[in-house]
Amino acid sequence: MPRLFKIRSKKAGLPPGSLVHIGEKKLEKVKISAIEYSEMYCHEREVSNIGECFPIKNDQTTTWITICGIHNVENIENVGKFANIHPLLLEDIMNTDHRPKIEDFEDYIFIVLKLLTFNETDKRIEAEQISLILGKNYVISFQEKESDVFNPVRERIKNGKGRVKKMGADYLAYTLLDAIVDGYFVVLEKQGEYIEAIEEELITNPSIETLKKIHTVRSEMLLLRKSVWPLRDVVNMMRKGEFPLVRSIIHVYLRDVYDHTIHIMDTIETFRDMATGMLDIYLSSVSNKMNEVMKVLTLIATIFIPLTFISGIYGMNFKYLPELDWRWGYFAVLTGMGIMGISMVVYFRKKKWI
Amino acid sequence: MPRLFKIRSKKAGLPPGSLVHIGEKKLEKVKISAIEYSEMYCHEREVSNIGECFPIKNDQTTTWITICGIHNVENIENVGKFANIHPLLLEDIMNTDHRPKIEDFEDYIFIVLKLLTFNETDKRIEAEQISLILGKNYVISFQEKESDVFNPVRERIKNGKGRVKKMGADYLAYTLLDAIVDGYFVVLEKQGEYIEAIEEELITNPSIETLKKIHTVRSEMLLLRKSVWPLRDVVNMMRKGEFPLVRSIIHVYLRDVYDHTIHIMDTIETFRDMATGMLDIYLSSVSNKMNEVMKVLTLIATIFIPLTFISGIYGMNFKYLPELDWRWGYFAVLTGMGIMGISMVVYFRKKKWI
Amino acid sequence: MPRLFKIRSKKAGLPPGSLVHIGEKKLEKVKISAIEYSEMYCHEREVSNIGECFPIKNDQTTTWITICGIHNVENIENVGKFANIHPLLLEDIMNTDHRPKIEDFEDYIFIVLKLLTFNETDKRIEAEQISLILGKNYVISFQEKESDVFNPVRERIKNGKGRVKKMGADYLAYTLLDAIVDGYFVVLEKQGEYIEAIEEELITNPSIETLKKIHTVRSEMLLLRKSVWPLRDVVNMMRKGEFPLVRSIIHVYLRDVYDHTIHIMDTIETFRDMATGMLDIYLSSVSNKMNEVMKVLTLIATIFIPLTFISGIYGMNFKYLPELDWRWGYFAVLTGMGIMGISMVVYFRKKKWI
Amino acid sequence: MPRLFKIRSKKAGLPPGSLVHIGEKKLEKVKISAIEYSEMYCHEREVSNIGECFPIKNDQTTTWITICGIHNVENIENVGKFANIHPLLLEDIMNTDHRPKIEDFEDYIFIVLKLLTFNETDKRIEAEQISLILGKNYVISFQEKESDVFNPVRERIKNGKGRVKKMGADYLAYTLLDAIVDGYFVVLEKQGEYIEAIEEELITNPSIETLKKIHTVRSEMLLLRKSVWPLRDVVNMMRKGEFPLVRSIIHVYLRDVYDHTIHIMDTIETFRDMATGMLDIYLSSVSNKMNEVMKVLTLIATIFIPLTFISGIYGMNFKYLPELDWRWGYFAVLTGMGIMGISMVVYFRKKKWI
Amino acid sequence: MPRLFKIRSKKAGLPPGSLVHIGEKKLEKVKISAIEYSEMYCHEREVSNIGECFPIKNDQTTTWITICGIHNVENIENVGKFANIHPLLLEDIMNTDHRPKIEDFEDYIFIVLKLLTFNETDKRIEAEQISLILGKNYVISFQEKESDVFNPVRERIKNGKGRVKKMGADYLAYTLLDAIVDGYFVVLEKQGEYIEAIEEELITNPSIETLKKIHTVRSEMLLLRKSVWPLRDVVNMMRKGEFPLVRSIIHVYLRDVYDHTIHIMDTIETFRDMATGMLDIYLSSVSNKMNEVMKVLTLIATIFIPLTFISGIYGMNFKYLPELDWRWGYFAVLTGMGIMGISMVVYFRKKKWI
Repeated sequence: MPRLFKIRSKKAGLPPGSLVHIGEKKLEKVKISAIEYSEMYCHEREVSNIGECFPIKNDQTTTWITICGIHNVENIENVGKFANIHPLLLEDIMNTDHRPKIEDFEDYIFIVLKLLTFNETDKRIEAEQISLILGKNYVISFQEKESDVFNPVRERIKNGKGRVKKMGADYLAYTLLDAIVDGYFVVLEKQGEYIEAIEEELITNPSIETLKKIHTVRSEMLLLRKSVWPLRDVVNMMRKGEFPLVRSIIHVYLRDVYDHTIHIMDTIETFRDMATGMLDIYLSSVSNKMNEVMKVLTLIATIFIPLTFISGIYGMNFKYLPELDWRWGYFAVLTGMGIMGISMVVYFRKKKWI
Repeated sequence: MPRLFKIRSKKAGLPPGSLVHIGEKKLEKVKISAIEYSEMYCHEREVSNIGECFPIKNDQTTTWITICGIHNVENIENVGKFANIHPLLLEDIMNTDHRPKIEDFEDYIFIVLKLLTFNETDKRIEAEQISLILGKNYVISFQEKESDVFNPVRERIKNGKGRVKKMGADYLAYTLLDAIVDGYFVVLEKQGEYIEAIEEELITNPSIETLKKIHTVRSEMLLLRKSVWPLRDVVNMMRKGEFPLVRSIIHVYLRDVYDHTIHIMDTIETFRDMATGMLDIYLSSVSNKMNEVMKVLTLIATIFIPLTFISGIYGMNFKYLPELDWRWGYFAVLTGMGIMGISMVVYFRKKKWI
Repeated sequence: MPRLFKIRSKKAGLPPGSLVHIGEKKLEKVKISAIEYSEMYCHEREVSNIGECFPIKNDQTTTWITICGIHNVENIENVGKFANIHPLLLEDIMNTDHRPKIEDFEDYIFIVLKLLTFNETDKRIEAEQISLILGKNYVISFQEKESDVFNPVRERIKNGKGRVKKMGADYLAYTLLDAIVDGYFVVLEKQGEYIEAIEEELITNPSIETLKKIHTVRSEMLLLRKSVWPLRDVVNMMRKGEFPLVRSIIHVYLRDVYDHTIHIMDTIETFRDMATGMLDIYLSSVSNKMNEVMKVLTLIATIFIPLTFISGIYGMNFKYLPELDWRWGYFAVLTGMGIMGISMVVYFRKKKWI
Repeated sequence: MPRLFKIRSKKAGLPPGSLVHIGEKKLEKVKISAIEYSEMYCHEREVSNIGECFPIKNDQTTTWITICGIHNVENIENVGKFANIHPLLLEDIMNTDHRPKIEDFEDYIFIVLKLLTFNETDKRIEAEQISLILGKNYVISFQEKESDVFNPVRERIKNGKGRVKKMGADYLAYTLLDAIVDGYFVVLEKQGEYIEAIEEELITNPSIETLKKIHTVRSEMLLLRKSVWPLRDVVNMMRKGEFPLVRSIIHVYLRDVYDHTIHIMDTIETFRDMATGMLDIYLSSVSNKMNEVMKVLTLIATIFIPLTFISGIYGMNFKYLPELDWRWGYFAVLTGMGIMGISMVVYFRKKKWI
Repeated sequence: MPRLFKIRSKKAGLPPGSLVHIGEKKLEKVKISAIEYSEMYCHEREVSNIGECFPIKNDQTTTWITICGIHNVENIENVGKFANIHPLLLEDIMNTDHRPKIEDFEDYIFIVLKLLTFNETDKRIEAEQISLILGKNYVISFQEKESDVFNPVRERIKNGKGRVKKMGADYLAYTLLDAIVDGYFVVLEKQGEYIEAIEEELITNPSIETLKKIHTVRSEMLLLRKSVWPLRDVVNMMRKGEFPLVRSIIHVYLRDVYDHTIHIMDTIETFRDMATGMLDIYLSSVSNKMNEVMKVLTLIATIFIPLTFISGIYGMNFKYLPELDWRWGYFAVLTGMGIMGISMVVYFRKKKWI
């Protein structure tokens, strides 16, 4: 349950805009780093206080501030103060159970995203909330913990490889978005491998555990879809040119990300459909197995019941029971029983019951 | 049934606009209180007659009139008379089975909302209808009974904490809306705990009672969705700026409430999906349990039926039955039966039937 | 079948606009009455020939012509002639299996509605078709039989109570619409009581009859929805101000009727959902009952089969069977059987199989 | 299969616009007739060559050319040549597995329709494709075989009855459309009777054949819906006034046809829903019947197994078995067995198991 | 799994626009050919380097460049360089798990399509990705392997048959599109035959294998739908005239292709529905067969159990058991058993249990 629903009741009764961290505290110490770059220039530093990064004076360069750890109220308040962010947004940043969304304020765009990872141990998808603030010449990214998803981007900036260094803050935001969406493919691949394992189990040894696993897959797909649907809308709004801060030169790249989200949606639907199919096969094979047991056993019983009846007849103590006195009576009865038993087996075989 | 459908037939045949209280009478005596405030000023009083509150002269202050108890026709008529409200609205206020809705009259906006509480005893969600009339400088709120959901707001006004005292009637209406929606999260949390309890029961001791509980959860979710879908529309219409009485400065706050309703919708869908999954697991585990019983029992029967047949053979009274005269015949037969029984058990084990 | 589908094949091959009565003839003699009223004036009379009502000269008064019985071709043709109605509309009036609909001709609006009643005997919803023609200063209403649904309206006009006498023909049409929709609530209440009775039956004595009743409820709800969905559209088109003959002062009243139709839709959905839930519980409880029978009975059989086997052993006629000669052999075996039987019962109890 | 999917693979690889007849050849010889009429005039003739009908010079009259048989490539090519029709349309005419559709070319409108008939033998709906070309003063209709659906229209033209003779080509097209849609009602009525017969069978003697019939009904309804949905769009586009060749005076008639298609859709949905309900009842009654058999039989077995055990006890050959020597032992045991058997029956009765 | 989801994780972390071949390498060596034609002229040649085809100078002719094999990065880069294609498109060409899509760049249109073939061995549908770049006077087509789907088009160009030689590049693109869509019909026909075979198997010999085949058909239909839905959008966008490079003269041809895609969608839905129906019949017939076995066997047991009980009675060793001494006791009991057995059979027959 706590996976699906984070405790928000501690906020009930508080005035709107109150900063309360909702979610699990995943990191001990907040870590802030800032990287400032232009096509020719690149400077990275760790800062202990968010105030050191402001004001972002230089219009010629792009500044990317990374804040790992969002549970510290004072710290988030400082961001609000220095970067002039609306209090409700600060509340959103600290509240980790948001859907992906995008909101346009004139000076900046606020984006909430979900970074997904596949937990190999319990085969669950885990979500971390990433918030981005995209300004004219800066991007501020908020993470719940230090994950390495943005490291390749940081490397590319430092090494000056790729297009990212030459282009501005909007391209940086796109790159971060792209890195997150690429992570979804990795999650789907692992999920796919898990589905393959369940299919294997379904054939070799289906049990009620298999059923629970199938349901887990289905509910994970549901969860995933809830992250991807609104993400699709976020990307779509960005690529449609609704935000002046996103230049039209970026749209073609966003269309590419959009295609990826569509592709992810398709795969999710396919996985859901496979889970439904596996459910049907599970139920069918369980009842099939049961049927088989019942059938063979009942057949054995059926063959022996009439035979037992015959033996019962000759066990009766009637004074006058002629067969009992015959010389070959016993052997005749034995033979008769044998023939009877065999012919029943033959009959059942013919009827394809065994 | 009475939960789902309130008796309206007593209204059939009456002319439109007739004031008839539809619903349960939850309170003995109507209680009216008025609070008048501005940024610097705050005055609260209890009134015995609604007429005392009118006319609301002062444009500098915001007046919030709370009416607890809506079953008194005369009282509601007075509201209509003094505040100049359309008769159909008065009818709506007294009729407690409305869906959430918003209606714009030039001088005021009329909002119907549902306040939800989770009844721990029978695990049902209970709804109370809240009506709001938002005028230029006043808010009138109608409640079925005295509940404490608006107390934090009242405290904030009296203590002068938060933004509420500085801003006008539209912000007050938003705050009330927000308080109600926050209550939904509390209901969902309790519902979530209940679902957890059912899941526990499903694993340890599933019975037809569990099935009924699962269905209760599903129908509660349906009911909840029926309250939240139109609420979402209400909030959306308000935040889209369709109503001149709601200033654009409030829209960003309403967008926040809107996000909450979306989040609630998502959780409801998740809960419904979990209920469906639990239903499948219930049915599977019931049939599994039955299968297990049948299997073991049938196996026992199957082993003993052929053995009984053999004992029947040697119980026959044939004069000439050679084995009966053998010295070790009895022990040979006993041994044979033992071997037969054991080999059948081994065979069934191998076939994984036991 | 005839409930769901009225025989139209007799119309195949006829030219469009041919007047043929489709449906059951519910009334022997056509009855026509006209009531002419203004705020101060009211005159009601029965007419034998529709022609007597025309022309409707007085613009100061509102005329309401009621025609009970629509199977008489000549009569309907006369309406067409005197009131100048399009031939296709006349065809529609005589054809009682229409969906609710509204059509705008410049001089008048044509509305088809369904009046529903709940037949207590076979628990079915019965529909009667009501057609309305709303002109500038007149309303013509066509009914299949004399029902008392419009009597309260007629009384209000004659007694001068309520708003209806002061307002014009469009308000009259709204009042009739409102009366019909109010009737739906009565039908739903009765349906709700019937569902309660089925639920009761489901708990005490479920049978295949219960299943058929549940299906009846579901198909009735389907039928009802088919009447209410298009009705909703009719009301919506009227309240949206698409028709010049419906003055804007009436819109707020129509919005009220619209809310009612939404409420009815919701209740129908709830009832459908309850029927689905009852279906699940029915199937579960039937299979549960069967399981219980099978389980107890199989248990009895299982306990006695091994015991019978033992008695069979000592029924064998071996010459040398030492136990038979023992003094307490019989009692030892009886005791052994008793212990065996009891321990099996204990084991099954422990396994929760009985 | 061939019903659902006509072999098109013979077209793969051919250039677009190649004339190949797709479908069954239903008629040996092509038959062409032309009827030219105005309000006062009417002339009908059979032609052997389509060329004889062209050019259609007279603007004062309406010409209706009927072509029965569409498998002849040369003939269809001639129509293209003389009436100046786009090659792709000719391809469409010869290809009988099209959905209903309408296409606007400036000089003419091309309409594809499905004429449905109910085959009483195998209870299947059969479709024939009808293509119409509506020009300014002519209609060309293509049929697969000579059916009598258009005969009433032809009679009305020749007899000068009805409106058809006075109005132009667009009204003629409407009349043909109306005749086809009227045929759908006949098909639905027959389908309805068939459903009634299945319901009867379901109650008296359900078998796996009944199941197959229910599935047949469902798939027929699916097929029907696929013809009616696009037909609805065709009629809707015509009545919305998108085509200059259809005068506004015709729109009210087309609205009538549109209502009919809606009505047909509703009936199809009802039939589908009934089929689903019958499926549920079938499955329930099959399992019910099985349960009943199993129950009674198991009960018989259960009663006799303990009794047999008792008889087994007294069949044991113990030297010292005191009851055997009692004078009334046999009768006491018989009585005991009788009481035991009867009390078990009573117990089962009380538990409602028999 | 690999069928449904291609490994993309190797791309995670790479900058956008990196050229990585995603999919199976189906061809050893890349093969490039170019054909240049106008109404009067036609020249075809194989080229070893894509650079040889550029620049495409002649505006009077149409050039069609075919590239079989897309796994070679350098080769695709060259296309980008010479034909001036956006890097993201090059990435799309090499990535074979795209949905069909169309993208408009001012100078060219980029189309991704799926060529489907039915693998007779494992009854699976196989997809090959085809990318088209349509410029003003050229078409570049990319295939994964050398398939013969475009051969008829090439032949028509070389032989000068059909319309294709006279018209420009847009008509060529349409022809290729048409050839691909025609291939879908072939796939559907083969799928239809396979469904027929499954239906046959369902009647004669249903097994859990049949169930798996039915599920395979369903998932293939799902896969197919995922290719056809976006294809439909591609064609629809082209025929709506959104792209200046597609002349309006081509729209009527595209409308024809559009009709085909609709037809394919319909057939897919029908097949899915048939699969669902087969699933129901499978489950019903499996449980029917089991029921039959159980019934007959239980009946046999039931008849013999009471008879065995009777024989047990007369096997008891009571000293005083009068019937045993009767002269005809044995024969009387035998006769009684016979009558009892026969009357039970008659009773069961009457109850229709056997």
